[in-house]
Amino acid sequence: MPKLAEKAAQNLDLLRKKKPLIHNITNLVVMNVTANALLAMGASPVMAHSKNEVREMVTLSDALVLNIGTLSEEWLESMLRAGQRAMELNIPIVLDPVGSGATTFRTFSAQKLVEKIKIRVIRGNPSEILSLRHKDSRTKGVDSIHTVDDAAIAAKELSRQIKTTLAVTGPTDLITDGARIIRILNGHPLMGFITGSGCMATAIIAAFLAVDPNAVSASAAALSFFGLAGEMAGNSSAGPGTFMVRLLDALYNITPEALEKGASIIES
Amino acid sequence: MPKLAEKAAQNLDLLRKKKPLIHNITNLVVMNVTANALLAMGASPVMAHSKNEVREMVTLSDALVLNIGTLSEEWLESMLRAGQRAMELNIPIVLDPVGSGATTFRTFSAQKLVEKIKIRVIRGNPSEILSLRHKDSRTKGVDSIHTVDDAAIAAKELSRQIKTTLAVTGPTDLITDGARIIRILNGHPLMGFITGSGCMATAIIAAFLAVDPNAVSASAAALSFFGLAGEMAGNSSAGPGTFMVRLLDALYNITPEALEKGASIIES
Amino acid sequence: MPKLAEKAAQNLDLLRKKKPLIHNITNLVVMNVTANALLAMGASPVMAHSKNEVREMVTLSDALVLNIGTLSEEWLESMLRAGQRAMELNIPIVLDPVGSGATTFRTFSAQKLVEKIKIRVIRGNPSEILSLRHKDSRTKGVDSIHTVDDAAIAAKELSRQIKTTLAVTGPTDLITDGARIIRILNGHPLMGFITGSGCMATAIIAAFLAVDPNAVSASAAALSFFGLAGEMAGNSSAGPGTFMVRLLDALYNITPEALEKGASIIES
Repeated sequence: MPKLAEKAAQNLDLLRKKKPLIHNITNLVVMNVTANALLAMGASPVMAHSKNEVREMVTLSDALVLNIGTLSEEWLESMLRAGQRAMELNIPIVLDPVGSGATTFRTFSAQKLVEKIKIRVIRGNPSEILSLRHKDSRTKGVDSIHTVDDAAIAAKELSRQIKTTLAVTGPTDLITDGARIIRILNGHPLMGFITGSGCMATAIIAAFLAVDPNAVSASAAALSFFGLAGEMAGNSSAGPGTFMVRLLDALYNITPEALEKGASIIES
Repeated sequence: MPKLAEKAAQNLDLLRKKKPLIHNITNLVVMNVTANALLAMGASPVMAHSKNEVREMVTLSDALVLNIGTLSEEWLESMLRAGQRAMELNIPIVLDPVGSGATTFRTFSAQKLVEKIKIRVIRGNPSEILSLRHKDSRTKGVDSIHTVDDAAIAAKELSRQIKTTLAVTGPTDLITDGARIIRILNGHPLMGFITGSGCMATAIIAAFLAVDPNAVSASAAALSFFGLAGEMAGNSSAGPGTFMVRLLDALYNITPEALEKGASIIES
Repeated sequence: MPKLAEKAAQNLDLLRKKKPLIHNITNLVVMNVTANALLAMGASPVMAHSKNEVREMVTLSDALVLNIGTLSEEWLESMLRAGQRAMELNIPIVLDPVGSGATTFRTFSAQKLVEKIKIRVIRGNPSEILSLRHKDSRTKGVDSIHTVDDAAIAAKELSRQIKTTLAVTGPTDLITDGARIIRILNGHPLMGFITGSGCMATAIIAAFLAVDPNAVSASAAALSFFGLAGEMAGNSSAGPGTFMVRLLDALYNITPEALEKGASIIES
């Protein structure tokens, strides 16, 4: 899809000029690597979670990331506060429902955030995303999904139900706003051997949303950019340690031209 | 000791097939690197500390790590909850008493965890391990330990007293269940120049316990595997930055055959 | 200024012999990398934030770092406790007012720490440092600072007002105790593309204060050492991933002789 690849390149160029400030309320495991990924690609990260300051911090920001890994009640309260202020200011919000579906607290928290806050994009793996279905939903469960096509149909239905663009990542990434379905083929198997690859993808979507109001094209730009960085890093790495280092280098070095050429985006 | 090296190789092979889920309630400094070490070696990490979800999360897990670095009262409460649930389910628990002996709060917390929860293995440095003695113990203190043999005798006594296998790490690692004494000679001096090397060792012991119910052979497998990775990383590193990267690569690349050949395990 | 470079070299030599223990109450994003930087250079880091133990932990330490990134009310309380105990024991304290000026809570917290605790050195960027002015101060604001000379004059005035040595970092670093003004020219642009470079600089100042009671010469040693490490890392790096790895290697490898030769310190 040359049009989305071209848009991705324009977005990356804009992003490096604007250096958007991305406010992250994210988990304790990936804070450092998320900040480094945002810095490497040309954005500006800030991490702040205290209920005393999240409303004020988000006001200064160009996008907000809510990531529920290592969640606690206090942090959930801060996410709700920051999210509500971001809504008032029309600042785009990305949700990463880490572990939703695994514990009651995570599922409850993710569903509460989806219910109370207007999220622009939700990024997760298939089981996390499908855990967001309403209880009485007839959307298929994760156990009944056997192919990428099954996943695409389920994601599309859920996107319509919760009126939010979904980015379902895996060996092939799916993006849907309930109408369009985009597949991103970029990526590398070593991404599964470092912690935070999903969380970085989420933060990178937020960075692209700061320069592109269209949730579908921003997500496609982010995931093709991140996947391409993974390919560049993976092709020369002896293992996940080297891979992480080269991934950050690639996020820094990929030019808009290289992204346009390397992005593997399919609209179907 | 060819038998333990052979067992280590079998365990590593099993572990890579099973990909056990390791629930970590660990300190803020090493969360990222612990997750990366577990992923690199072929296990699957999850970090969760909220009292609202630790009981549920540990139910899904194959082993539990309790690490008291950067401890607070809330986290101690969560450790007790997760630990009690793990006991009920016979899920193996490893304790890392980081800084026990340095402050009253850490010593109190470590002793409370040992008292309330059936720990499978405790991994620490000599002063941390010896801080776990009962107050009225006649076990020798850390100041009276001058040789590896002194340490071995003290560890053996303490292991009997608290009925738990101990893994005392340092230039030479000691493992004892009160009867056997195993020494691991693998390792590299650069391990002392990165943060989290002890904490990674603890998590790796947990991963091996997920496939081997024998605390002694699981600990021997873990420490020889981790020490061998250190040797491979250290022999080609210009400093601790490069060392950390190559350590993760080595955890990913070491085969069961290489472990059996490289493990330096002595039973005496 | 050969005298300060010579002193820096002596300090580095002392530090590697003494291996001072640096107690850090710092932010969640940079804990790991701060610990690694301190270890790589030859110091010994400890992270502890619980109000139950900070007074006891700081007693064991040779310097204390207070860093308000990702601050919460509980952590502020712990910083005040640790700081007051360090004052009683004449243990040097370094403050990093991360984000002061950006939100009311951060500005309030930084000002409270400065008011209640005798800080030896405050390290920040120009806007963070200038946010510490008294409300009724006539010191120029950050908006009116256009040149390094403007910054030097403003920093000198503020240093006198709050009676604390200031280390204002940027492309050129400024150190002032209200009388002297030192400029450090070492550094590399890639330092701006990794998270925690400022926070590492702060912790390294604390490590030098543990062996040098003079706040100006300790800060000059720290910032020239860290900047030189940045130069060595940056000159051979393809991006920020590689840069971070080589920065840690350089902190480990720089000898006192190399520091004396490479330090670019100007007193004016």
